[in-house]
Amino acid sequence: MSSNLIALDVMGGDKAPRAILAGAVSACSALGLQRIAPERIVLVGDGPTIESFLEERGGNPGFQVLHAPQVIAMGDSPAAALRAKPQSSIVLGVGAVQAGKAGGFVSMGNTGACVGAATLGLGTLEGIRRPGIAVTLELTGHPVTFLDMGANVSPKPDHLLQYAAMASTYMRDCIGVKDPRVGLLNVGEEEGKGTPLLKEAYALLKGGPVHFVGNVEGSDLFRGVCDVVVTDGFTGNVVLKLMEHLSEFMLGMMMSRIANHDATAWGNDLLGDIKRAVDYSTYGGALLLGVAGVVVIGHGRSDESAVANALALAARTIDANVNEHIEHGLSLPK
Amino acid sequence: MSSNLIALDVMGGDKAPRAILAGAVSACSALGLQRIAPERIVLVGDGPTIESFLEERGGNPGFQVLHAPQVIAMGDSPAAALRAKPQSSIVLGVGAVQAGKAGGFVSMGNTGACVGAATLGLGTLEGIRRPGIAVTLELTGHPVTFLDMGANVSPKPDHLLQYAAMASTYMRDCIGVKDPRVGLLNVGEEEGKGTPLLKEAYALLKGGPVHFVGNVEGSDLFRGVCDVVVTDGFTGNVVLKLMEHLSEFMLGMMMSRIANHDATAWGNDLLGDIKRAVDYSTYGGALLLGVAGVVVIGHGRSDESAVANALALAARTIDANVNEHIEHGLSLPK
Repeated sequence: MSSNLIALDVMGGDKAPRAILAGAVSACSALGLQRIAPERIVLVGDGPTIESFLEERGGNPGFQVLHAPQVIAMGDSPAAALRAKPQSSIVLGVGAVQAGKAGGFVSMGNTGACVGAATLGLGTLEGIRRPGIAVTLELTGHPVTFLDMGANVSPKPDHLLQYAAMASTYMRDCIGVKDPRVGLLNVGEEEGKGTPLLKEAYALLKGGPVHFVGNVEGSDLFRGVCDVVVTDGFTGNVVLKLMEHLSEFMLGMMMSRIANHDATAWGNDLLGDIKRAVDYSTYGGALLLGVAGVVVIGHGRSDESAVANALALAARTIDANVNEHIEHGLSLPK
Repeated sequence: MSSNLIALDVMGGDKAPRAILAGAVSACSALGLQRIAPERIVLVGDGPTIESFLEERGGNPGFQVLHAPQVIAMGDSPAAALRAKPQSSIVLGVGAVQAGKAGGFVSMGNTGACVGAATLGLGTLEGIRRPGIAVTLELTGHPVTFLDMGANVSPKPDHLLQYAAMASTYMRDCIGVKDPRVGLLNVGEEEGKGTPLLKEAYALLKGGPVHFVGNVEGSDLFRGVCDVVVTDGFTGNVVLKLMEHLSEFMLGMMMSRIANHDATAWGNDLLGDIKRAVDYSTYGGALLLGVAGVVVIGHGRSDESAVANALALAARTIDANVNEHIEHGLSLPK
């Protein structure tokens, strides 16, 4: 896993392949937040499509290309698609990480297929039973990482402890939060609240190698009381979709008013602020923590800049050796 | 249960007792959406406090008063408080329904204590195992009822079916939706998604006496695909708090911009629109469905108009004989 290359699934996502390819170009431009050398990116997808896009843009700036003749569609059933399409961009992209030819894989494609391919192909990190999907949002001016956002809808208490430990390492190594505070998403702050799963997880987190600050509620998420929010994949997925669509719904109400009042200039600034606050692509997409490799799963609707951010996230995570630190941290008593 | 009186907990809520008493007065004014006769309202709380408030306002317009010398605080542990305070406004208010002296009880106080007092004091409706908290939101211009929002954090599949049936009856009788469509909150639309609980509930709902439209996701809540959303009390509670605080957070961002741009007039209109959309007190508070009596639990932060709305909700629910129809509907094959 010593490669620092990033395999990019060119075929996944609602706007693939053009937005994905444009995102790769953008990640390598001097305008990017974190410029990535084109030589670090392996474009995985239909070869002729990739070549013709790059020709349009004045030639290949140095990307590697890995031809994948098959595509797993957004609506495909993950398990069946993985079996039926061994030459798909998702399977070949994960395969590049598995073979040590790349250190990370980025896809805006079918989430279930990415989780499945990564878990089967890469295996989990030592000490980790189940991977979890982590997303980072900047709700109150500082980043908070939430996991699991849907890899594991029925976790066991020790999975939640492992999520906490992995996300803490990620927050420290990649986001630069010194001693990340971990909260457990629950329906009340007191110990003893919630389902049997949460009661057991609370006890494990209290004694675990993380800075546990106790239960947090939906209302706490906007108060900056913790840096990591741990939850089961069912609740996490519902919450993530709800946040996204509630904010879109509110934006829609605002937009219609703004249009009526010629307040477009500052209105657009505001919309941008709010979009950034609830949009996890600000932090580059969802990181599949727990597999033996760096896997970033972006939103299906990702545009060029979201793709560039996802590539930057993969680069940061590879460069910070997060996985090595997770394994190392888990083997320590505290 | 033939009484149509409404017992109102004067002592519960962050702004009690003044906002509660003002709400009672407001519910009886000609300005209310649905005017309630003062003779229908029983004020339950500290007698002298109630009398002096009414004197300030020019005398008692016809309210009945039930003196309750004890108060269960918002932060009290429900089970312990119910044992320790048998003369509290919550216990006496539920007791009035139990004794047939009132048909409904409205409280903005401690939710757990209200659920506990109602379940113990009133028992559940015939055919109902566990009560669930229902809230109605008007997210896209038409009302959607969500339940359970926290009465039962670990429900069984048949509880979810009972929730669906109760909420359907409520939507038909009280909101006037002819054939309410029921969705099951899940992480994907396909059958077979989600936790074991949801898979079993899906099968029960499919064969149950409700108009089941399948799984719905967070994104569907704003698309008007169903009139009832069924979920477990854990997820429901997290979602409800999140919606409330996410919208407050967004409102905060807007307010600061609006203040900077002298757009106060239309800005305030907009804030009002959004608040109404995500505020369940528009529909009068949360209805505890499944107990043998009408119990409305308002938000602790309820102001005068929220209290008036809650009283109107109790009146509508009593007048529509929702509970009778629930019991009747459950005994029918379809």
